Amino acid sequence: MQSISLAERTNALKQSDIRAVTQQVNAVDGINLGQGICDLPTPEPIRERTRQAVTDDQSIYSHYAGIAPLRQAILQKAQSYNDLPATDIDEVMVSVGSTGAFVTAAMALLEAGDEVILFEPFYGYHRNILELTGATIRYVPLSGPGDTLDTEALERAINENTKAVIVTTPVNPSGKVWARHELETLLDLMQQHDLVAITDEIYEYMLYDDHEHVSLASLPGAYERTITLSGFSKSYNVTGWRMGYAVAPPHLIEKMGLLNDLFYICAPRPLQHGLLAALEDLGDEYIAQMQSDYAARRQMLCETLEAIGFDVPWPEGAYYVLADFAPLQATHDGFENDKAACQTLVQDAHVASVTGRSFYQHPEDGRTKLRFCFAKELPILKQACTQLRTALA
Amino acid sequence: MQSISLAERTNALKQSDIRAVTQQVNAVDGINLGQGICDLPTPEPIRERTRQAVTDDQSIYSHYAGIAPLRQAILQKAQSYNDLPATDIDEVMVSVGSTGAFVTAAMALLEAGDEVILFEPFYGYHRNILELTGATIRYVPLSGPGDTLDTEALERAINENTKAVIVTTPVNPSGKVWARHELETLLDLMQQHDLVAITDEIYEYMLYDDHEHVSLASLPGAYERTITLSGFSKSYNVTGWRMGYAVAPPHLIEKMGLLNDLFYICAPRPLQHGLLAALEDLGDEYIAQMQSDYAARRQMLCETLEAIGFDVPWPEGAYYVLADFAPLQATHDGFENDKAACQTLVQDAHVASVTGRSFYQHPEDGRTKLRFCFAKELPILKQACTQLRTALA
Ligand SMILES: Cc1ncc(COP(=O)(O)O)c(C=O)c1O
Ligand SMILES: Cc1ncc(COP(=O)(O)O)c(C=O)c1O
Repeated sequence: MQSISLAERTNALKQSDIRAVTQQVNAVDGINLGQGICDLPTPEPIRERTRQAVTDDQSIYSHYAGIAPLRQAILQKAQSYNDLPATDIDEVMVSVGSTGAFVTAAMALLEAGDEVILFEPFYGYHRNILELTGATIRYVPLSGPGDTLDTEALERAINENTKAVIVTTPVNPSGKVWARHELETLLDLMQQHDLVAITDEIYEYMLYDDHEHVSLASLPGAYERTITLSGFSKSYNVTGWRMGYAVAPPHLIEKMGLLNDLFYICAPRPLQHGLLAALEDLGDEYIAQMQSDYAARRQMLCETLEAIGFDVPWPEGAYYVLADFAPLQATHDGFENDKAACQTLVQDAHVASVTGRSFYQHPEDGRTKLRFCFAKELPILKQACTQLRTALA
Repeated sequence: MQSISLAERTNALKQSDIRAVTQQVNAVDGINLGQGICDLPTPEPIRERTRQAVTDDQSIYSHYAGIAPLRQAILQKAQSYNDLPATDIDEVMVSVGSTGAFVTAAMALLEAGDEVILFEPFYGYHRNILELTGATIRYVPLSGPGDTLDTEALERAINENTKAVIVTTPVNPSGKVWARHELETLLDLMQQHDLVAITDEIYEYMLYDDHEHVSLASLPGAYERTITLSGFSKSYNVTGWRMGYAVAPPHLIEKMGLLNDLFYICAPRPLQHGLLAALEDLGDEYIAQMQSDYAARRQMLCETLEAIGFDVPWPEGAYYVLADFAPLQATHDGFENDKAACQTLVQDAHVASVTGRSFYQHPEDGRTKLRFCFAKELPILKQACTQLRTALA
């Protein structure tokens, strides 16, 4: 063989560090607070309807945008929970995870020559998928939690090539929840510069301390220029089922549907039927219970991290803490930077986290940070907290 | 809103005619031999293991290339049925359908400036996905069934920019099965010009009249430059489950895996566990039964089409017939071209087919052809045949 050269778009791709840390922590039979793999059980009504769909042989391709009853149920949820002015199931597209919906949105909108704004700290898949489109990414800092949108920094990042902006709320990894007035400011700029937003609202139900989830597309004038993404992975503990969706006006979602057809054909059919239960059978009570469960987990982990010396911005939403170990550096060895700190916690506490650098364009910006995920069964999380306290006593 | 322009790659995308015909035939409560949606039942052992996986809460993300036991079972099948020299599960990647594997293969290999060879008649998704990569497609005619590789035409299509060639065997839509010596000729050219092949072998078990399925990658020297694709959709009647896979040497499959992670995260987890049953519990007997069932269906449909005046190249494999109605044009109205003929059969026989133009770069090349799919329960297929005979008596 002479030489098989791959496409240039593959050059930047590399396996994330997250998986490597997972392997290390498994090797010591430790607890993984790194990868956002929520290991809580899938609610029984969803499992029951899925088994029934398998029994009923719901096995052939569906419409590329999903089965009609699921799109209908998502439309209703988008109207009632997200306050979106969507009116027709043609504005709803089911995809293979919210990731699938993000891929089709990014591929429909962006190409070489375009610019897209990504706030940092960011979710790594967003960056990597945006890079595949060929567009240039402009990074705008958005620390959090708190009221932290820097309007001037955002304005400076916009130019005539800017086409889109990515809004994640609540934010993975920082736990920031976008405030209504921040979204209003963003919308103003979007309208001035004719931008489209892709919003990732996958953590929309995970909220603490009376923080409110506001969907950008619910603001007057926003819907026509917003692609709203969400999914079932996080709220219903089905990360591996690959079921998510987009809601957007016809002129934006139509081409996304054709790309969805090409990349995915359709979301997995029997699981589409099963997840009808999420929207039809699991109501407000389920959500309320989930919120109070996560609030207890958040408190346990944040208090532990504070007790051992981390600087902890308590998250307003989602199920991660991006904590700063700078205060520990004076008193403890093994915390020179995020990589070292991550290794130290795997070795000494048998607890995995994610290095701060994974969430920033420039690794230095994350050098004193680690992200911990608290989507764990309470006894396991408790055990992890005990191990952390013991190791760093 | 001023004007939201979408990425150029979306310009060529449009909804296929196939779905429109499906709607028409549904409107008259007719029988759909158009879309390749096989409505046969999913084997019970697969459904049983899937329900069990759902009960057991196999719900979190898997490795992006799939769960190890499934990759192991696919490796064994690739060795024993396809005769591939693969030796490690790292050479196996499970994806969201064989389509997902095709997307990652095409995106890993091809970009603007490259050329790729596609034989026609072709499968439309191949063309559309290849177009998304930015590469230029060179079409090479490959009529079939029969011994029809035109080596000179193929050689003429190759130049210094040619990077890859797509081989579908058995072919959708023609039913051609590539003969071993044709694959040997192709491999010679691939070696001379340093090309990679992506083979789509999704119909590998649907064979008639002692035709043998030969995997290109089983030929000496071929494996290192071949990405072999297959999946569960067709052989196990789970088209909507979105489960397929690639087998390829490490230097080719590694980057595909990283793209698979970005586009798909992983194949739907509970369905991965369920489809272990396909490879572990359903053996040669299942395949033999499937083959004889399809042989009976093929005979029924081909005889009917011949009886009503079509010119019918009986397929050697897969479950389609690409039949020519030119002989009917002299005696019947409504057969001016493939679109008219398709309409006529929907109206007069309440049977849907696919227009020939869907499979060619130039619509004229398919103007006297229709594709019929015989992946139907026998009584339904029989009814369709009766309706065809009555309408065209
Ligand atoms: C912000 C964000 N978006 C999307 C995803 C993945 O969502 P899905 O499983 O729906 O593809 C994650 C998972 O970690 C996430 O953190
Ligand atoms: C040649 C060919 N490849 C691939 C597919 C789709 O396969 P999958 O369901 O595995 O994505 C089809 C379905 O019609 C096909 O005809």
